[in-house]
Amino acid sequence: MAIVKNEKITSRDDDFAKWYTDIVKQAHLAHYTSVKGCVVFEPYAFAIWENMQSVLDKMFKETRHENLYMPMFIPESLLLKEAEHVEGFAPEAAWVTHGGKNKLEERLAVRPTSETLFCDYYASIIGSYRDLPKLYNQWCSVVRWEKSTRPFLRTREFLWQEGHTIHETAEEAQEETLRMLNIYKTFFEKYLAIPVLVGKKTEKEKFAGAEYTLSLEALMYDGVSLQSATSHYFGQKFSIPFNVKFVDRNNKIQNVYQTSWGASSRMIGALIMVHGDDNGLILPPKIAPKQIVIATIRNDEKVLDVASKLEKQLKEQGYRTILDTSDKSAGFKFAEYEMKGVPLRIEIGPRDIANGHVVMARRDNGEKEIVDIDTVVERAKILLDDIQISMYEKALKHTKERTYTCTNLDEVRVIMNTKPGFIKAMWCGDQECELKMKEIRGMKSRCIPFEEEHISDHCIVCGKKAKHMVYWGIQY
Amino acid sequence: MAIVKNEKITSRDDDFAKWYTDIVKQAHLAHYTSVKGCVVFEPYAFAIWENMQSVLDKMFKETRHENLYMPMFIPESLLLKEAEHVEGFAPEAAWVTHGGKNKLEERLAVRPTSETLFCDYYASIIGSYRDLPKLYNQWCSVVRWEKSTRPFLRTREFLWQEGHTIHETAEEAQEETLRMLNIYKTFFEKYLAIPVLVGKKTEKEKFAGAEYTLSLEALMYDGVSLQSATSHYFGQKFSIPFNVKFVDRNNKIQNVYQTSWGASSRMIGALIMVHGDDNGLILPPKIAPKQIVIATIRNDEKVLDVASKLEKQLKEQGYRTILDTSDKSAGFKFAEYEMKGVPLRIEIGPRDIANGHVVMARRDNGEKEIVDIDTVVERAKILLDDIQISMYEKALKHTKERTYTCTNLDEVRVIMNTKPGFIKAMWCGDQECELKMKEIRGMKSRCIPFEEEHISDHCIVCGKKAKHMVYWGIQY
Repeated sequence: MAIVKNEKITSRDDDFAKWYTDIVKQAHLAHYTSVKGCVVFEPYAFAIWENMQSVLDKMFKETRHENLYMPMFIPESLLLKEAEHVEGFAPEAAWVTHGGKNKLEERLAVRPTSETLFCDYYASIIGSYRDLPKLYNQWCSVVRWEKSTRPFLRTREFLWQEGHTIHETAEEAQEETLRMLNIYKTFFEKYLAIPVLVGKKTEKEKFAGAEYTLSLEALMYDGVSLQSATSHYFGQKFSIPFNVKFVDRNNKIQNVYQTSWGASSRMIGALIMVHGDDNGLILPPKIAPKQIVIATIRNDEKVLDVASKLEKQLKEQGYRTILDTSDKSAGFKFAEYEMKGVPLRIEIGPRDIANGHVVMARRDNGEKEIVDIDTVVERAKILLDDIQISMYEKALKHTKERTYTCTNLDEVRVIMNTKPGFIKAMWCGDQECELKMKEIRGMKSRCIPFEEEHISDHCIVCGKKAKHMVYWGIQY
Repeated sequence: MAIVKNEKITSRDDDFAKWYTDIVKQAHLAHYTSVKGCVVFEPYAFAIWENMQSVLDKMFKETRHENLYMPMFIPESLLLKEAEHVEGFAPEAAWVTHGGKNKLEERLAVRPTSETLFCDYYASIIGSYRDLPKLYNQWCSVVRWEKSTRPFLRTREFLWQEGHTIHETAEEAQEETLRMLNIYKTFFEKYLAIPVLVGKKTEKEKFAGAEYTLSLEALMYDGVSLQSATSHYFGQKFSIPFNVKFVDRNNKIQNVYQTSWGASSRMIGALIMVHGDDNGLILPPKIAPKQIVIATIRNDEKVLDVASKLEKQLKEQGYRTILDTSDKSAGFKFAEYEMKGVPLRIEIGPRDIANGHVVMARRDNGEKEIVDIDTVVERAKILLDDIQISMYEKALKHTKERTYTCTNLDEVRVIMNTKPGFIKAMWCGDQECELKMKEIRGMKSRCIPFEEEHISDHCIVCGKKAKHMVYWGIQY
């Protein structure tokens, strides 16, 4: 672990954006580069990403998905084949025009997403229903030439996985769309300790080219919402222009039904903004690169001996453990690992040893307890499990407190200007009313939940007959 | 696993290049795309790559390297900072000139390799010797706009890892350069079952911008050599123009000493060309996506019962096992998994069950044996271990048979036109003589081995005083 300077960071209640940037810098997560809008994912952030990858990848493989790798370049003509898709992605594509000294005959987009490449591939490998389904995923980076950027939340290049599947029937593809959304939901709740809303995006907010988009929405500490993962159902919208056909069970030629789904390094941003505090990151044990730090306070022989025995025992139990025996002051050491968000700290000094105990400190709530040396390993398990659950519950409580039911725009305005969060409100289904909502701090519809509540009969904007209950929120 | 058409492939002795392409296609390893020179890494090839990654990544982490992720774009001005480097890489760079509709102020190269980005990063994070060494690695794809391409061996985009480290002293950096070469050597010999030559590249063949390049060279079945991994020592050649400085232990300001090292998806090509035969791939057990296939011959209840019990037992022992109970003919099934190179096949039919045994067939040498059902698991371990070793020994024997000691160019010409391989010959150190050697089927120096033999006093080309013994060979 790199050395953290023991400086104070901005308070998150004073300036949330500045607090975020301070953490990104001081926990050594991302570093700006000479390419505007692109960052280095530093080792500590990348270790978080690797843990996310490893859990998600296992979940994907358990549901029979296979990894592969598509080229990063998309010929312009391929990107142009589906009209809505090109409209959504061409304006923010990075274009390769030259290979060495030669101008290319056709320019190439650096992939903003890979539906078009997958379709091109499908078309040449699918013959009959016996070849279906194909359940693919790839881990890669994608590029979108955004104007304003922020590390992890919106960068020109970011890391993600994109799942792409094709199926015999619409039903099967739609089941897949929902299955993958639920996998993300489980991952967010059980691993990232982040509660999420799930539902369908409105027409205006769906993915460019999809029949519909399902989405995961999470509320950050400052009440701003973050679209955290999405799962798209395409029907035959790509398979028709891309000519992805198969002979079905009735010997008829049909186009396949398609899905895609993705989650990105934005999840690192969510971890920071949901759990972090004024001392730095707070990482859920299941994702933390280091779950336990053993920090020695004064290094005599006995202290070092006990500390390294404990390190060994904890590692044997599978805990990602780090032992810091450096001669920095206790206060400095503690602050360092607090900044890094290590869930559990074990403090060992000569006085502790003399009394046969150590101190165990939780990062999530700061509680300290004195623990008999012989019971440290079993206590670590209990504490780490409890931290994981408590972090989720705390975030859930915050989300609930910041979820409001509204029936008029004045209410919404007051809330959004004081203590923003999710707004539950009725909607007539017209895009015009969505645009009106946007006038309030750029609010957007987050999703139409699968189980809608009946709040009133009328659209909160125009007063006409309501079609749906919608979650609204300011977004990153 | 995708379905393999049970077609004959070209014999490797008739047309090695065609044989290679046939395997790539029929084992579903790579698929051409509409971007010239870029391929889809299909799931089976990608699974091989994931196994390679997982072993190498562990070896890197055990030697204290950390993963991170650098942007894929390099501003032209950054690439231009080291003269030899730009000369080597700029002519084959893919250039991004537009973001969305806007022309970029400065064009960006899609990374052909990332020394320049790492230097830019180092310069801003290094202060004193206490910050050193930095031992980084990243897994990513890189782009080189090559004219003629072949799947895995030379594609415009390929997968690799690139390690980048900086150190206080030249000695330490040179130790690292050698350490990483040895890690690759271990990986090739113990995991890929591929024997390698190790040594130093000549000035002409070293990496653009390096002080020197160490390299791993392997001989393919057809006697052509493949540069299989490289490890570069840069000294201060980048750290001076990039201004990567630190305060040393004597309180003096110095530039860091640097290395980089890489291995790529070309290793998949090496696996094919070293081990494969006219029935398809032969994969070493330690890297094979599936180590054992259980193929049922006629599916009655007993057969299915025994087969799935065996599958369970083998999986419990950690073997990557696949059970194929489809109703394809035995011959078809066997050919399918032979094409995929699965090291061990277990055949189970009603007659076997009646006799309390199964048949176990090795992919590497085709040997079959009858094994008591109760001893299958222990026998599998013995066979897989033996396959791993035998494959290495067979490749080593081939390499030795094809390694020649020569003292005149006529000998070299005859060998290279009949049964090519590695040529050991003396060299005066002049580039002119290297170029003369190139006239024989494009031969190049492979490396100067760490322990040179004394073959004669004279350069094989010009007859002047020899400086080095060099391995020479035709290359991919």
